[in-house]
Amino acid sequence: MALRDARVTLAHGGGGKAMRDLIEEVFTSVFQPPGMEDQARLMSQALCAPGARLAFTTDSFVVDPVEFPGGDIGKIAVCGTVNDLAVGGARPLWLSAAFIVEEGCEVDLLRRIVASMQREAEKAGVRIVTGDTKVVGRGSADKVFVTTSGVGVIPAGRDLAAERVRPGDAVLVNGVLGDHGAAILAARGDMALSTDIVSDCQGLGHLMEAVLAAAPNARACRDATRGGLASALNEIAGVAGVGVEIDEDALPLRDEVKGMCEILGLDPLYLANEGTLVLFVPADEAEAALAAMRALPEGRGAVQVGRALDGPPGRVTMRTLFGGSRIVDMLVGEQLPRIC
Amino acid sequence: MALRDARVTLAHGGGGKAMRDLIEEVFTSVFQPPGMEDQARLMSQALCAPGARLAFTTDSFVVDPVEFPGGDIGKIAVCGTVNDLAVGGARPLWLSAAFIVEEGCEVDLLRRIVASMQREAEKAGVRIVTGDTKVVGRGSADKVFVTTSGVGVIPAGRDLAAERVRPGDAVLVNGVLGDHGAAILAARGDMALSTDIVSDCQGLGHLMEAVLAAAPNARACRDATRGGLASALNEIAGVAGVGVEIDEDALPLRDEVKGMCEILGLDPLYLANEGTLVLFVPADEAEAALAAMRALPEGRGAVQVGRALDGPPGRVTMRTLFGGSRIVDMLVGEQLPRIC
Repeated sequence: MALRDARVTLAHGGGGKAMRDLIEEVFTSVFQPPGMEDQARLMSQALCAPGARLAFTTDSFVVDPVEFPGGDIGKIAVCGTVNDLAVGGARPLWLSAAFIVEEGCEVDLLRRIVASMQREAEKAGVRIVTGDTKVVGRGSADKVFVTTSGVGVIPAGRDLAAERVRPGDAVLVNGVLGDHGAAILAARGDMALSTDIVSDCQGLGHLMEAVLAAAPNARACRDATRGGLASALNEIAGVAGVGVEIDEDALPLRDEVKGMCEILGLDPLYLANEGTLVLFVPADEAEAALAAMRALPEGRGAVQVGRALDGPPGRVTMRTLFGGSRIVDMLVGEQLPRIC
Repeated sequence: MALRDARVTLAHGGGGKAMRDLIEEVFTSVFQPPGMEDQARLMSQALCAPGARLAFTTDSFVVDPVEFPGGDIGKIAVCGTVNDLAVGGARPLWLSAAFIVEEGCEVDLLRRIVASMQREAEKAGVRIVTGDTKVVGRGSADKVFVTTSGVGVIPAGRDLAAERVRPGDAVLVNGVLGDHGAAILAARGDMALSTDIVSDCQGLGHLMEAVLAAAPNARACRDATRGGLASALNEIAGVAGVGVEIDEDALPLRDEVKGMCEILGLDPLYLANEGTLVLFVPADEAEAALAAMRALPEGRGAVQVGRALDGPPGRVTMRTLFGGSRIVDMLVGEQLPRIC
């Protein structure tokens, strides 16, 4: 045990022995990246199959609090990047992890985050192969920020893209909406809310493989994270030039989430999710896609929530419980900062 | 011009319209990433050549100040990641860029950083293909942090690795040492130093290609960043199980850098560089490698600074100007926080 400090100091970011000890003991002993160079060197036959493409994505995570019911910043960093790859049709292979740590951060907190990342990586079948650590002075960051990038392979013949959505397509989700946003809000404590809601934070790679096997003509998919279902639908409708209509009575929402939104004046359509996807499939593949999702724990609550329409292009509307219709616009300001 | 704000607000990170405007106007209009999905989808024949490997690396950048003589956080983020790939023998192809922005950060500062990144990417022949933006409240970050990840291809037959270093190998550098560290130190202003030193921040991809053509048996290479030449040499000596001896009178140091180090009690061997590599080659390829470097602007000051020895394993020593010898250990604490 070379590392005896309970808290991170600026020396741990200085490029010398203290940094090497922190990296070896807290990070590489768990992630076990291949090799000793500053780069991972990787080979996968899948990348070289005719017609295969490489998928590459990145996300920074700044969630506050760092640990919350149902996850922590490490879990969300791995799941978020795995999901960005998966919803695009890629099989996730390798992740990088870069940490910006505030001076004074507890080393044990870093250890818990790293353990959480490794656990999720194993579940998702990916490896964390390279990384970086920087330390900034007290007050120049908030505990720890994590940036993960991911590389995966899109097998030949897969082409999930918003442009492919057509009027008549079914709009599906894999489960309840808004749990992540509600859990973070409650965990911040400043609302004095008492709730049992936990984040839906989970990897969706295996679910996507099952869906694509069952619904081979699936058009497009999004991870409904920041901005929630409403933002994901608006983005797809805009790119595809279709209208999208959802049914209020079909939306899977927990009573606790509905209640919290009512009290706080929030719209659950905009609440963030971290393990919830929205999928557009041709209508005749909707049942098969739903059945494939429901057969897995990540998709047990899968339902159809709406459909793509001929127009107006880019407009998302909701048929309300009372038989009316309202526009579901893109979020204008912020709903919750530092949700992921 | 959808974006009328002069400063970033929390709404710019919220997942809604404000975020889309910021991303479209400041980031994607310059980087022009391929496609509209959350992932870049890429293909390179080079990746599929027999024996080729994929290289993957990441670094977070937190340099303070964000703009300094010779560069800014964007330039350093692109050059740093390009260099991590290049010194491992990879040809850099694609970069991701993730931004953590403090509420109140000037939008014009972001524009300058992005322009700088695009300029360096073009010089290096890489594309910034995917990215992310998060906004945190005032005081939860310091202006802006940038995390770049890079993907490249290592052609068949290239195997630069510290383990390959052998006693007798020549130790080369491509130019003067310590300029980046000295420039940052001066730019912080709290030392009341007046100097003309500018950071050596530059991409080394073209230089590495030239070196590897001239010295095909090159053993190992490192980008001498945080911790400087001393840390890079210690790392290689440790992994290779060789000794390394450098000659004080061969070290390329500007008089201004030497003077600053004397005044401040710093050792230039530990000062950070951002465009300086240390290369181990078989002795009979040293002249060819030096000539190849000197033919390029990035390598005009290339010199041999030392050699690998039979032992003691992992020990780096310096023959001093006065004929003595001293151990050049790894840096123990921090020298300068937030140097990159």
